[in-house]
Amino acid sequence: MTVGAPDVKGREQILKIHARKVAVGVDVDLRQIARGTPGFSGAELANLVNEAALYAVRSGRQTVTDLDFDQARDKVLMGAERKSLTMTDHERVTCAYHESGHAVVAALLPGADPLHKVTIIPRGRALGVTMQLPEADRHTYTREFLEAQIAILMGGRIAEELFLRQMTSGAGNDIERATDIARKMVCEFGMSAALGPLAYRTPGNPWETDKGVGISEATAQQVDHEVHEVVMRGYETARQVVAKNRAAVRAMAEELLLVESLDADGIKAIIASAA
Amino acid sequence: MTVGAPDVKGREQILKIHARKVAVGVDVDLRQIARGTPGFSGAELANLVNEAALYAVRSGRQTVTDLDFDQARDKVLMGAERKSLTMTDHERVTCAYHESGHAVVAALLPGADPLHKVTIIPRGRALGVTMQLPEADRHTYTREFLEAQIAILMGGRIAEELFLRQMTSGAGNDIERATDIARKMVCEFGMSAALGPLAYRTPGNPWETDKGVGISEATAQQVDHEVHEVVMRGYETARQVVAKNRAAVRAMAEELLLVESLDADGIKAIIASAA
Amino acid sequence: MTVGAPDVKGREQILKIHARKVAVGVDVDLRQIARGTPGFSGAELANLVNEAALYAVRSGRQTVTDLDFDQARDKVLMGAERKSLTMTDHERVTCAYHESGHAVVAALLPGADPLHKVTIIPRGRALGVTMQLPEADRHTYTREFLEAQIAILMGGRIAEELFLRQMTSGAGNDIERATDIARKMVCEFGMSAALGPLAYRTPGNPWETDKGVGISEATAQQVDHEVHEVVMRGYETARQVVAKNRAAVRAMAEELLLVESLDADGIKAIIASAA
Amino acid sequence: MTVGAPDVKGREQILKIHARKVAVGVDVDLRQIARGTPGFSGAELANLVNEAALYAVRSGRQTVTDLDFDQARDKVLMGAERKSLTMTDHERVTCAYHESGHAVVAALLPGADPLHKVTIIPRGRALGVTMQLPEADRHTYTREFLEAQIAILMGGRIAEELFLRQMTSGAGNDIERATDIARKMVCEFGMSAALGPLAYRTPGNPWETDKGVGISEATAQQVDHEVHEVVMRGYETARQVVAKNRAAVRAMAEELLLVESLDADGIKAIIASAA
Amino acid sequence: MTVGAPDVKGREQILKIHARKVAVGVDVDLRQIARGTPGFSGAELANLVNEAALYAVRSGRQTVTDLDFDQARDKVLMGAERKSLTMTDHERVTCAYHESGHAVVAALLPGADPLHKVTIIPRGRALGVTMQLPEADRHTYTREFLEAQIAILMGGRIAEELFLRQMTSGAGNDIERATDIARKMVCEFGMSAALGPLAYRTPGNPWETDKGVGISEATAQQVDHEVHEVVMRGYETARQVVAKNRAAVRAMAEELLLVESLDADGIKAIIASAA
Amino acid sequence: MTVGAPDVKGREQILKIHARKVAVGVDVDLRQIARGTPGFSGAELANLVNEAALYAVRSGRQTVTDLDFDQARDKVLMGAERKSLTMTDHERVTCAYHESGHAVVAALLPGADPLHKVTIIPRGRALGVTMQLPEADRHTYTREFLEAQIAILMGGRIAEELFLRQMTSGAGNDIERATDIARKMVCEFGMSAALGPLAYRTPGNPWETDKGVGISEATAQQVDHEVHEVVMRGYETARQVVAKNRAAVRAMAEELLLVESLDADGIKAIIASAA
Repeated sequence: MTVGAPDVKGREQILKIHARKVAVGVDVDLRQIARGTPGFSGAELANLVNEAALYAVRSGRQTVTDLDFDQARDKVLMGAERKSLTMTDHERVTCAYHESGHAVVAALLPGADPLHKVTIIPRGRALGVTMQLPEADRHTYTREFLEAQIAILMGGRIAEELFLRQMTSGAGNDIERATDIARKMVCEFGMSAALGPLAYRTPGNPWETDKGVGISEATAQQVDHEVHEVVMRGYETARQVVAKNRAAVRAMAEELLLVESLDADGIKAIIASAA
Repeated sequence: MTVGAPDVKGREQILKIHARKVAVGVDVDLRQIARGTPGFSGAELANLVNEAALYAVRSGRQTVTDLDFDQARDKVLMGAERKSLTMTDHERVTCAYHESGHAVVAALLPGADPLHKVTIIPRGRALGVTMQLPEADRHTYTREFLEAQIAILMGGRIAEELFLRQMTSGAGNDIERATDIARKMVCEFGMSAALGPLAYRTPGNPWETDKGVGISEATAQQVDHEVHEVVMRGYETARQVVAKNRAAVRAMAEELLLVESLDADGIKAIIASAA
Repeated sequence: MTVGAPDVKGREQILKIHARKVAVGVDVDLRQIARGTPGFSGAELANLVNEAALYAVRSGRQTVTDLDFDQARDKVLMGAERKSLTMTDHERVTCAYHESGHAVVAALLPGADPLHKVTIIPRGRALGVTMQLPEADRHTYTREFLEAQIAILMGGRIAEELFLRQMTSGAGNDIERATDIARKMVCEFGMSAALGPLAYRTPGNPWETDKGVGISEATAQQVDHEVHEVVMRGYETARQVVAKNRAAVRAMAEELLLVESLDADGIKAIIASAA
Repeated sequence: MTVGAPDVKGREQILKIHARKVAVGVDVDLRQIARGTPGFSGAELANLVNEAALYAVRSGRQTVTDLDFDQARDKVLMGAERKSLTMTDHERVTCAYHESGHAVVAALLPGADPLHKVTIIPRGRALGVTMQLPEADRHTYTREFLEAQIAILMGGRIAEELFLRQMTSGAGNDIERATDIARKMVCEFGMSAALGPLAYRTPGNPWETDKGVGISEATAQQVDHEVHEVVMRGYETARQVVAKNRAAVRAMAEELLLVESLDADGIKAIIASAA
Repeated sequence: MTVGAPDVKGREQILKIHARKVAVGVDVDLRQIARGTPGFSGAELANLVNEAALYAVRSGRQTVTDLDFDQARDKVLMGAERKSLTMTDHERVTCAYHESGHAVVAALLPGADPLHKVTIIPRGRALGVTMQLPEADRHTYTREFLEAQIAILMGGRIAEELFLRQMTSGAGNDIERATDIARKMVCEFGMSAALGPLAYRTPGNPWETDKGVGISEATAQQVDHEVHEVVMRGYETARQVVAKNRAAVRAMAEELLLVESLDADGIKAIIASAA
Repeated sequence: MTVGAPDVKGREQILKIHARKVAVGVDVDLRQIARGTPGFSGAELANLVNEAALYAVRSGRQTVTDLDFDQARDKVLMGAERKSLTMTDHERVTCAYHESGHAVVAALLPGADPLHKVTIIPRGRALGVTMQLPEADRHTYTREFLEAQIAILMGGRIAEELFLRQMTSGAGNDIERATDIARKMVCEFGMSAALGPLAYRTPGNPWETDKGVGISEATAQQVDHEVHEVVMRGYETARQVVAKNRAAVRAMAEELLLVESLDADGIKAIIASAA
C-alpha cells in the first residue's frame, strides 16, 4: 500500500517553519490548521502562510488570525475570487443550479467527503465552485468513495438538464475528471469484474514504462466499455439523487442566487428544511 | 465551470492603460468599447488602441474618435481590407451568395449571436466575411448555440449549391471549423447521447496528457459516426433555412454586389423586406 | 473564403520594384506581365525579372524586351531547358504521346485553364511538359475544375496505353498529384457525398493540429474508397476524351516529334484540323 | 542461462571494503550478512554499512553491532519507518488484513521465499509491508515460483474482499507487479502453452531492438488472454488459501493491530496456532 | 515525366574535367566511356578516373589506357575484388549456380538490359556478382522491364532450389530488392489494375509529405496482396526460364567454377551452345 | 550474395599485426589460430592477443604459448569464468541438464556446427555455456542449418522439462534468439512457403528504410503464424532428439556435475558410450 504528500504531522512541522517568518496571533493553533489541510503539498502550505499574512496586512492588522488562515485556505484551494467577472443573468442561474447539483449529491451520498463550501462567485478559472474537505488524511480510496466522486461530478450536468432543460460546455471539466477516475478504477485499481485485477496500459501513456497488458483492440474495446459503464452508473446515481431531491436543489440554487456562497452549516440547513 | 480571457471589467482596465499613450477624444467611452469587444485578449486590445490611433493620424485628426475605434475593431476582428484584390465576376457572385448564406442562417436561427457585418471586400486571407458579435461575454456554450454555429458555417456552402449549383474549395475553412466544433461537442462536452458524458481522446492530440478513453477502434468508429451526425444535422438545418428564405438570400447577395458591405441594420432591413 | 499569394495589383507593384534595377524596354507593359503570372510568389517574380535580364544580356541587348520576359516566365514555370539530354527514339515517342494526351484532354475539357505550351524538350527534372496558364487569378476552385485537373493528369498515362500499349514509371508524378487533389476534395473541401462536408484528418499529417475526425478504420476505409472513386472517374473521363480524339492526339504527337514545342495557337490548329 | 548483480562472495568482498571505514564489532560476521542480502547491488551494500553505522551512533555506541546491521537491512529493503504518519482506524484495519493476506499466502504456498517480516508501520511510500527474503542467491525462476509470487501479490486484495467486503486503490501497486510478472512469463519466458517458447514484443517497449513477433492484433489478443489467465489463476489460488485459512489471517491481522510488526518466528507461531 | 543524374553529355563533360588531372592515353575516347556509364553520378565518375589512374600506376604505365578505365568501371560498379576470401567448395558451387540463375534469366528475358559480366570472385560485400549494363540512358521504366528485373533477381534462388535442392540466406538481398521494385510498381507507378493509377503511402515512409491514400487496413491488405502477386509472378517466370534452360545454367555454373568470371561474349557462347 | 567480418586471410594479417607487440612462442601458428576464429571481428582478434599475453604473464612465462591462445579464445567467446558464483545444488543440476540438452541436440543434428565445449562454470552473464565452433568461415546459411540452430536453442528447455519436470526463466535468452532466427527466415530470407520470397518489414524496425511490404494486419498475422510454426518445429525436433537420447543427456549431465566442463572429445565419448 502506497502514499504521497506530507501527513498531518509533516504538515504541522512545515507550517511551523513558515509561520516563524510572520507574526501569528495567539488564537492560531497550527496543529488544527494542519488537520484541516489534508492533501496540501509543502509548497501549498508555504503559500497558505503567505496568503494569510497578506489578508492580515490588507485588514491593517499586525498579527495573522485564524480567520486569515481560513480565507487563505479557500484561496489556495479554489483560486482567487473574481467578483469583477460579469455573468449574464442566465449564466448566474445556470451556475447556481449546476453547483447545487454537485452539492446535493455530495451531501446525500454516503461515504463522500463532507462539503466545505458552495459558491457562485467566480474563482480562478471557475464560474462556480463546490468544495469538499476530507476529515482526515486519506491514503487509499475504496470503490464506493470513487463511485461517489463520479456521481458528484455528474450532479452539475444533471441539475442543468432537469431544471433548465439544457446541456452546456461548462460540464467539460467535470466530464474529464469523472472519465479519468473511471479509467483509473478499471486500468489501475482492478475494480472492474470483467477485466479483473490486472494493470492495463492505455494509449494515453504509450511512452511510459510498460506496466500491463492492454495491447489488443479486443482488450481496448473491453476497457472502453467498462469505463463507459462506470461513468454511466455514476451519472444514473446522480440523476436519481437530484430527481428525488428537487426541492433541496431548487432551494439551494435560489439561496445561492441571493447570497452567492454557502458554508457547511448553510448547506445542511437547506437540505434539512427541504427534506 | 471554467472561463478564459479578460472579462468586461478587465478589458476596460486594459483599454485605459493603453489609452493613456494616445489622445482620446471626449466622445469616446472606454467602458462602451470594452462591452463591444468580448473575447478580445489583452494583446488584441492593445492592437485595437494602436490601430484606432493610426486611423486618426491618417485622417489628419489630433484625437482618436469613436469611429476610429469602430474601424480598428473591424480590422482586428476581420483583418485589413484588401480592396486591391481583383476577383472575377463569377468569384464576386460566388462570394456574395456564400456570405449571404452564412448571414441569413445566422439572422434567423434562434440563439445565435447577433450579426455585426457582412462584406465581400476581401479582408486578410478571406474573400468575404460574415461577422457576428455577442451582446455580452459568453462563458459557456449551450448545445443549441453550438448547433447553430455549425448551421451558420454550413450556410455558405448551401447557398452556393442552391443558387449557383456549384461546390467550391472556398468552404474548406467553414468545414474545418464546423467539424472541430462537432468534435468538441462529442468528445469534450458530453453532448452525444450515444457516447454519454465521457471525455474521448482523439488521435489528433495523442501527445497530451491522457484524459479519457477513446482507445478502441469500436469507440473511434462511434465517435466518427456521432461527429458526422452532428455536422450533417447542422447542414440540414442550414439547407432548410436557406431554402425557406431564398428571397432574403438572393436580395442580400444582390445588395452586396452593389454596396459590398452591410451592417446589422442593413441586414435586418433586407431580411424584413424579403419576408 | 480564403486566399494566398499576391494578387494582380500586388504582382504589378512587386515587378515595378525589381524592374527598377534593370533597363526595361519601352515595349514592356508590367501590368500585362502581372496579368500573365497568376499564382507567382514574390520570390518567383524577382526571379522572373532576373532571368529576363539574363536573356537580354545573352542576346547582347541593352534593354530587356517583352520576349525576354516571355522566355523567363517559361523558365520559372517549367525549369531550364536541357536540350543536351539524349533520349532514345522510343523515349521521344513515349514522351510525345504522353504530353499530347495531357494536352488534348486539357484542350477539350470544359472549365480547364487554357493551354500555354506543350514541349518534349526536357526542362528541369521533366522529360516533357504540358503547361496551362489561367486567364486570371483564381481564388477558389470548383469541383468541376478539380475533376478536370485529375483527368488532364491521367491523359498522359492513357495516351501511352492506347497508342503504345505500354505503362511506364513516367506517370508516377502525375499519379501523385492526381491522388493529392482527390484527397483534398474528399478530406478538406467536403466534395464527397458519402463523407459529407466534414474535414477528415489523414495519417499523412498526424502531427498537425487536430482538425477533423478520420479516426476509425471504418472512416479511413471510406476515405480510401472515395479518393479511389474520384481518381478513377478522372481516369475514365481522360480515357473517353483520348479515345474519341485519337486523330488529334496522334497528330499532335507527330508534330511534337518534328518541332518539339507547340504554343497555344499551334495546339488549337492541330485540334481543329483533326476534328 | 543468464545472471546479474554480485553473488554471495562478491557481496562479502564489497562489504569488507566498506566495513573498513567503520568500527565493526567482534560479533559481526560479514560472510553471514552477505548470505542474508541476496539481490543487493553494490550501492545497496554500501548504503547498508552506512545505515548500520548511523544506528550505532544514534545508540551512542562506538562499534557497529549485528543488530545495527539488521535494522539497516530492513531500512534498505523497505525504506525508512514513518511512525508519524497518522492513519484512520479503518485504514489501520484495512492495512492489517491486507498485509496478513499477503503473509498467509506467502507462508503456505510451497516454493515461495521465506517470510522475513510483516508490518503495518508505514515505511517509505508504503502503508504496510510484507517482506520475503530468499535463503540463497536465486539465478533463475521456475514457473511455480513465479505463479506463487502472483498469488502472494493477490493475497492483500483478497483479504480485503473476504474480511472487509471492500476493494481499495491500495492494491494498485500489487496489481501492477503481478501483471508485469505474468507478462514476462508469457512474452519472455515462454511459459504459456498456447503461445509457446517464443519471444513476443509488446507495445510497452516498441522502441527497443526487435526481439520477437507480437506483430498482429490476433497475436496481441492471444497475449492479452494468456496474461489475464495467468493473473486470474494466481488470484484464484490466493482466494483459496485465504478462504481455507481465515482463522490465521484474522489472528495475524489482530496481532498486527496490537504489536504493529511480526518477524518470521511470530508469523510461524500465529499460523501454527490458527491451524 | 521526370529524370535524375547527369545525362550522357553531362557525363562526358564531367569526365573531361577530371581527366585533365591525369595523363590519358591517345586510345581513350571519353565520349565512349560516357556512353558506357549510364546512371553514374558525378562522384562516381570522379572515382572512375581516379581508379583508372591507380590501375595505370600499379601496372607501371605513364598514361591511363582504355583497359584501365574498363577495370575501374567494374570496381566502381561492383566493388573491389576480394580474391583472398576463402569460400568452402560447397559455397563456391552454390555461388556459381546462384549467379548462373540470375544470368540465364537476364540473357533470355526480352527487354532486360544486356549482361556485362558474371563472376564468382567475391567483390565488396558480395560473394558473386551478375552485372547488367544498359545500352543507353534510361529515363523511364516500362512495366515489362520492371517485371523482368524481378524475375532476374529471383533467378538465383530458383537455380539453388532446382539444382542444389537448397534455400539459403544468400538470396536475402535479391528478395529485398525485388520486393522494393514490386512495391514501387503498385504504390507509385500505378501498375496494379486492382489499385489503379493512385499513389499509396505505405508505413515504410510515414514521415514524408502526405502524397496518397493508403490509409485503411483494407487498402493496406490490397497493397500487400498486389505486391505479393507481382513478386510471385516474377518468381514463376524465373522458374520457367531456369527449368527450360537447365543445360545452359549447368554449363555456365561449371564454367564459372573453372574460370571464375565470364564477360558478355562468354555468356552468349555458353547459352548458344547449350540451346 | 553478401558477407561481413574479416575472412581467414584477413584474420591472419590482423593477428600478425597485434602479435608484433608481444613475445609469441615458436609453437604458435597464427594461420592455425586464424582458422579457429571464424566470425571474430578485428577488435575481438586484438582482444584475443591481449588476453593470451595476460595468461602468459600470470603463469610467469616470458612467451605466449598456444595454450594461452586457447584459453584467451574461450574467454573472448564465452566471457570470463566466474568460479566464485555460488549456485544452489538444484541450480547446478538444472544447469547441467539444460546445457546437456543443448549439447546433445547439437551433436546429433546433421548440419550443425561441431561442438567446442560444454560447461557449467558460470562465465560472463551465463550460468552455463554450450559452445559450437564452425570448421570454416560461413558466408551464407541454409534453411537446414538455421532450423538446426533453433532446435539446439530449444534443447535446454526441453531437457529441463523431460528430466526435471520444470520450466524456468533461464531459457529466456534461448527463446529470444530462436525467435529472432525464425523471424529472419520468414521476413528476410524468404524461407516460408506461405509468404514466399518477399521481404516483410516488421514493427520491430519501423524507422529503417522501407524494404518490404508487411503493411496490413492480415499480413502481420501470417508472419506471426509462420514464425510460430518455425520455432515450434525446432522445439519438436529438439524434443524428439532429447527423448530418443535420454541416456546420453543424463550421462552428460552427471559428468558435468562431476567435472564441470567437457571438450569436444569428452562430449563425443559420452554420446558414443550412451548409444
